[in-house]
Amino acid sequence: MGGDQGPAAVVAGIALSAEINPDIAFLLHGPRDTLEPLVEQRKALAGRVEIRDAEGVVSMDDKPADVLRKRKDSSMWSALESVRTGEATVCVSCGNTGALMLLSVVRLKKLPGIYRPAIAVLWPSRNSQGFNVMLDGGADIKADERDLLQYALMGASYARNGFNVRRPRVGLLNVGTEEFKGRSEMKAANDLIAQNANAADFDYVGFVEGSDLPSDRVDVIVTDGFTGNVALKTGEGTASLIGQLLREAFAHSLLSRLASLLAYTSLKRLSKRIDPRRQNGGVFLGLNGTVVKSHGSADATGISAAVKLAFQLAQSNFSEKLAARVAAATMLASDELDHGDDDKDPQAKDAETSSNTGNGRDKSA
Amino acid sequence: MGGDQGPAAVVAGIALSAEINPDIAFLLHGPRDTLEPLVEQRKALAGRVEIRDAEGVVSMDDKPADVLRKRKDSSMWSALESVRTGEATVCVSCGNTGALMLLSVVRLKKLPGIYRPAIAVLWPSRNSQGFNVMLDGGADIKADERDLLQYALMGASYARNGFNVRRPRVGLLNVGTEEFKGRSEMKAANDLIAQNANAADFDYVGFVEGSDLPSDRVDVIVTDGFTGNVALKTGEGTASLIGQLLREAFAHSLLSRLASLLAYTSLKRLSKRIDPRRQNGGVFLGLNGTVVKSHGSADATGISAAVKLAFQLAQSNFSEKLAARVAAATMLASDELDHGDDDKDPQAKDAETSSNTGNGRDKSA
Repeated sequence: MGGDQGPAAVVAGIALSAEINPDIAFLLHGPRDTLEPLVEQRKALAGRVEIRDAEGVVSMDDKPADVLRKRKDSSMWSALESVRTGEATVCVSCGNTGALMLLSVVRLKKLPGIYRPAIAVLWPSRNSQGFNVMLDGGADIKADERDLLQYALMGASYARNGFNVRRPRVGLLNVGTEEFKGRSEMKAANDLIAQNANAADFDYVGFVEGSDLPSDRVDVIVTDGFTGNVALKTGEGTASLIGQLLREAFAHSLLSRLASLLAYTSLKRLSKRIDPRRQNGGVFLGLNGTVVKSHGSADATGISAAVKLAFQLAQSNFSEKLAARVAAATMLASDELDHGDDDKDPQAKDAETSSNTGNGRDKSA
Repeated sequence: MGGDQGPAAVVAGIALSAEINPDIAFLLHGPRDTLEPLVEQRKALAGRVEIRDAEGVVSMDDKPADVLRKRKDSSMWSALESVRTGEATVCVSCGNTGALMLLSVVRLKKLPGIYRPAIAVLWPSRNSQGFNVMLDGGADIKADERDLLQYALMGASYARNGFNVRRPRVGLLNVGTEEFKGRSEMKAANDLIAQNANAADFDYVGFVEGSDLPSDRVDVIVTDGFTGNVALKTGEGTASLIGQLLREAFAHSLLSRLASLLAYTSLKRLSKRIDPRRQNGGVFLGLNGTVVKSHGSADATGISAAVKLAFQLAQSNFSEKLAARVAAATMLASDELDHGDDDKDPQAKDAETSSNTGNGRDKSA
């Protein structure tokens, strides 16, 4: 109910998905009086939608903490509840991100060993799968080296189960590949992820830069939620500016308008490739259950893309596989962290760090 | 000497500038044997270039600290020395950024009151001037609220003197405009910049997001160098991906190739608008003297754009005006910080913060 385009867009979106995919069924949460007429208009949805009456609506302006206290009657609450009880396999929402994340954490609970859940977003890229996974896209504004390791594990698992990337390549977002650049927690995370890559079945490519987000050097890019959110919005803003300028360039003269007619299918193909609506869906990772956050402004195409992603994740038993992967890795990681935190023998620790980076000086840089 | 395309591109670039601008003259630093034949080939440079013989070259792989110790004979060192002694008004370099920044700080020294110098970069935008100023683009990986205030002051001064924006609009980069988001140092910086905006002659628009970097909501965007560098590289990477996909789309069929011929001038116009070579030049702010850092891969067009920017800054007496502005504001700011740091009366401090943000709860958020 809380998306910018209201429930009509949501119903149109699930109708699109229902037409394409005969194996999908929906629990639709919101005021029955509003939803029933919308569903009845769509033939594709006949017999495949169960409405869960919920009067309350979480708006984009609601503060997350208020939602938790006052919106137990909301469609968002009801949708998460259906995942919690196991009735639904995945929840899709295009409502208020902050509220959805807080409600998800409180109601679904974090996986054992996860301190900060993350939002994994898809980034159009030169990869064979057509995009990279980046996390955290803004669930939390901070992340220490343990969180960044968990993001690497969860992102790799997501790429494997959601998109069939057998051995994902993981990179850590930094300001430069030179050893002397970057924050100290980056160096710690770099070592920690490198140590865990083999056991967790991914390739660690080391530090990557912002320019690698759309590249084919990696499949998964790990960063804190502050940096990730700025990068995400920057990429969206840049793409949108170029799109506007392109339209203006083609509207400039009679000749260019003619050219744009001829180029119509080419431009359509390009716009399909980078259309954010077609890669719509941030996935909340690190919870007992899967939540797909669709863009707030998603139209029917966008909703349908988010539903498609949700279906793929449900089919691959992603939630269970991720939980198992995190459980195994958390044990491994805490073994190594216990060792790393052991200050009884700082020389040994120094030596370990030096041998990992190949340069003892980096520690102080 | 240290650019990716070597000294021939630099000489070609300054020749371009010399042709357009009769008021410009050059001190060219590097091995005389290499430079003299290159200069002699260019008619436009006759009588306008003085070569300063310097044998050493700083490479892109040199670590900044090593450069400081071992490269006193380098062209980079010699170029900065000519600014330090006042022979040159502005230094332009397309060499190793880290080394150039460190050498600049050590040789030119920071302005009194500046703790972290910054690199200001230009960002194509919907503004009437065609771009926004963003800083820090990567001089330092951290910034506290005092640094961010100084970035605001310096960025506003740069926009005013470099690009004739009379009363620049300044924004602080954050993950969201909602009060409950963002890091705690962001809230402190938000208050501090708001308090100083009027005295420093700029409009403070508050928090902005990554999507505002190419927007016309602001003229100057302030952030720490880690976030700024990731955003910069992300924007460049996204623009470059779209450019590649656009070329591929037009090469796809006979019809689309024909369309691209017809659209040639339109696409040329667009590419000129967002061509990074035409807005080439990060400016080091906060030093005794102005240094323009051109892109390492700059060709003649890029070098010429950087020289044009350097010329504009020299003409407007930017260095002197910036120093005066920082000196005045540093006094103001330290007055207010002294007050803010005074914990004898925390109630009064609380009340002050509340009245600024309109919400006392934000302090703990």
